[in-house]
Amino acid sequence: MTSPALPPLPDSLSALRIDGARLWNSLMRLARIGATEKGGVCRLALTDLDRQGRDLVVEWAREIGCTVRVDAIGNIFMRRAGRRGDLPSVMTGSHIDTQPTGGKFDGNYGVLAGLEVLRTLHDRGIATEAPLEVVVWTNEEGSRFVPVMMGSGVYVGAFTLEHALSQRDAEGIRVGDALAAIGYAGDAMQPPRARAYFEAHIEQGPILEARRAVIGSVTGALGQRWYNVTITGMEAHAGPTPMDLRQDALLAGAEVIRLVNRIALEHGTDSRGTVGWIENYPNSRNVIPGTVRLSADLRAADDATLSSMDRALRQGCAALAGTMRVDVEQVVYFPPQPFDPALVDAVREGARDLGQQALDIVSGAGHDAVYMAGAAPAAMIFVPCKDGISHNEIEDARPEHLEAGCNVLLRAMLRAAGIPGD
Amino acid sequence: MTSPALPPLPDSLSALRIDGARLWNSLMRLARIGATEKGGVCRLALTDLDRQGRDLVVEWAREIGCTVRVDAIGNIFMRRAGRRGDLPSVMTGSHIDTQPTGGKFDGNYGVLAGLEVLRTLHDRGIATEAPLEVVVWTNEEGSRFVPVMMGSGVYVGAFTLEHALSQRDAEGIRVGDALAAIGYAGDAMQPPRARAYFEAHIEQGPILEARRAVIGSVTGALGQRWYNVTITGMEAHAGPTPMDLRQDALLAGAEVIRLVNRIALEHGTDSRGTVGWIENYPNSRNVIPGTVRLSADLRAADDATLSSMDRALRQGCAALAGTMRVDVEQVVYFPPQPFDPALVDAVREGARDLGQQALDIVSGAGHDAVYMAGAAPAAMIFVPCKDGISHNEIEDARPEHLEAGCNVLLRAMLRAAGIPGD
Repeated sequence: MTSPALPPLPDSLSALRIDGARLWNSLMRLARIGATEKGGVCRLALTDLDRQGRDLVVEWAREIGCTVRVDAIGNIFMRRAGRRGDLPSVMTGSHIDTQPTGGKFDGNYGVLAGLEVLRTLHDRGIATEAPLEVVVWTNEEGSRFVPVMMGSGVYVGAFTLEHALSQRDAEGIRVGDALAAIGYAGDAMQPPRARAYFEAHIEQGPILEARRAVIGSVTGALGQRWYNVTITGMEAHAGPTPMDLRQDALLAGAEVIRLVNRIALEHGTDSRGTVGWIENYPNSRNVIPGTVRLSADLRAADDATLSSMDRALRQGCAALAGTMRVDVEQVVYFPPQPFDPALVDAVREGARDLGQQALDIVSGAGHDAVYMAGAAPAAMIFVPCKDGISHNEIEDARPEHLEAGCNVLLRAMLRAAGIPGD
Repeated sequence: MTSPALPPLPDSLSALRIDGARLWNSLMRLARIGATEKGGVCRLALTDLDRQGRDLVVEWAREIGCTVRVDAIGNIFMRRAGRRGDLPSVMTGSHIDTQPTGGKFDGNYGVLAGLEVLRTLHDRGIATEAPLEVVVWTNEEGSRFVPVMMGSGVYVGAFTLEHALSQRDAEGIRVGDALAAIGYAGDAMQPPRARAYFEAHIEQGPILEARRAVIGSVTGALGQRWYNVTITGMEAHAGPTPMDLRQDALLAGAEVIRLVNRIALEHGTDSRGTVGWIENYPNSRNVIPGTVRLSADLRAADDATLSSMDRALRQGCAALAGTMRVDVEQVVYFPPQPFDPALVDAVREGARDLGQQALDIVSGAGHDAVYMAGAAPAAMIFVPCKDGISHNEIEDARPEHLEAGCNVLLRAMLRAAGIPGD
């Protein structure tokens, strides 16, 4: 499933550019559906707002002659025919569902950048050998229904359709019923088939901005191991209990927090270690904490590094134990997912064609592209977002960066699809 | 207000002992009022259960000829006349209100040990020069109404009667109304007047047990400084944000937790440092914490040490600040309160008379005796409690230890009151 090196673009297309203003206006138009007072978007998966967003995107795709197919988990495939209908399509896409306090760009950019590529080709009457498809994946965010990345996960077989359809939101509504209610319960799933998959996305982190890069050539996604760590000490009164007779679970918790941070620092620049969640019992000012539970989230670009971090966490916690008990339980594992080298090269070259130096970067977060990379050659294009902030109503990105990322996507998709007469 | 050295007991009284079984039985009888299934007591201040407990103790005091006076904040003074009515009384006492999941001994022991002293003198017809008084202080625990140590606080003028009476519980009931409802809104407050004040109490800590001592001669109470520490970092996604671009408020919080612990260790064996409470925002597994609030509780036996600890906390937090903001706000200050040297000596000598070596100890927790020490010569007698556990339904103490503490109280009170004919 790795791609051969892509052919160069013909000279006749070297000056081809997407319409940055149209892309921006489409983003702003879609963002009105579920717009929040603070300038963000709340458009949870499979709500009526999601339907309105889907309907708008589908309408735009039909305006440029695309055929539209919806599958059984509600993924939307908007297809522009190629000269050779027998070839697998070159896909791009992302999602249009948002977090409850989400922004205008997360996901939406990937879908509308794909649409803008198709609009540009439509305007110029440019044909491709392979068909092109823009996909809207169902429920990437996982805010209303778990698991996250549901549509792409079912598509690649990470879990079954039946499992996904039977999930329920906090009010007990099933995915299957919510899909039917908004009219997006579609045809039977088809086996995953793509010549290449690209996904453009805001970085959701601060690296591009800090390094003054406009295009991130994403080489892969970090593997993840998530843990619950439980420390059992002895609660006691803060006043009468001398320091040497304490079993202070929060003091041990502080050591675990430092340990998780140190492990990441000792495992290279692409590794991460985070304690995001802590629960302290009884959590009273003048009581020495008796029990602390906290999360540990370790990420790394390759499995050997991630395994080494796992060992360091377990050994570090065992060394801390002493008079207290420290339990470490792994609760989530995603293996690292490298992207396709030829497609990543195409992203780098697309940036160079625009006079930009792409910055190689790893995706710390999950994306539909990570699932797709298990079924087809895949790559991602990152563009900066302001202050690295995402999943927040103040999420922001600059029009010229979004335009540049879309131009890189255009070039990469054309090269992957092939131009007749080349 | 310091006491001169107390005269020795006359030889005729050197073999005098309280009745340990009667003391134990009284404790168990009182513990039936508000008894919990797990063997503890829930008898919140100024409830009908508190009234039942007060009525029982008052009845027992009247049976041995005491006069009973209640003041405007509901403190009960049970008085055994002395030969010289003009002398200030020798007082002892504590409280009978409990925590919601309290035990049988906290407070109750101090009141019933005092009653047992009076019963013993009554049985033997032993007169004293000064009157003896056993006090039940209102609302020491502060569980239902704040502030804690309300009755003794009003008595010594730490805050006004009006302030105390206007406090409300979680249901909006005023202290004044609750007092009236149980029939314990008494006469006008009188100025504090005592020749000496002793309070027997379980240690509520592990020191006596660890050191195999039966009697703690309490030399004073630790001063306390409580703080709110607020750390303001920047929340961000745990995956996409590299370690060197983070402002992880919880990682800084871990350093504050360690700092508070280290400050206590560096300031002598009687110093304490505790972070009991922490609040982490947004407290989500894969989000780098943006804001952490935590408590710091510093205690020391003298004000110079406590001030040094205060400086170390402020300097340590300032040094941590860097890219993050660390705010330190002091919210509580109780000065250290030394007890009266002559009365502490009387406790030590009382233990020696019983063949015990008293262990000098500081009280880490607040007690009514700490307020009383501002108005009269005061001292406390500690006895061990099982595993140092208190404010818990499994709070436990051994009958022989409670008996020994009560015998020490007997001897100290007799010496402070004076025996006719000495």
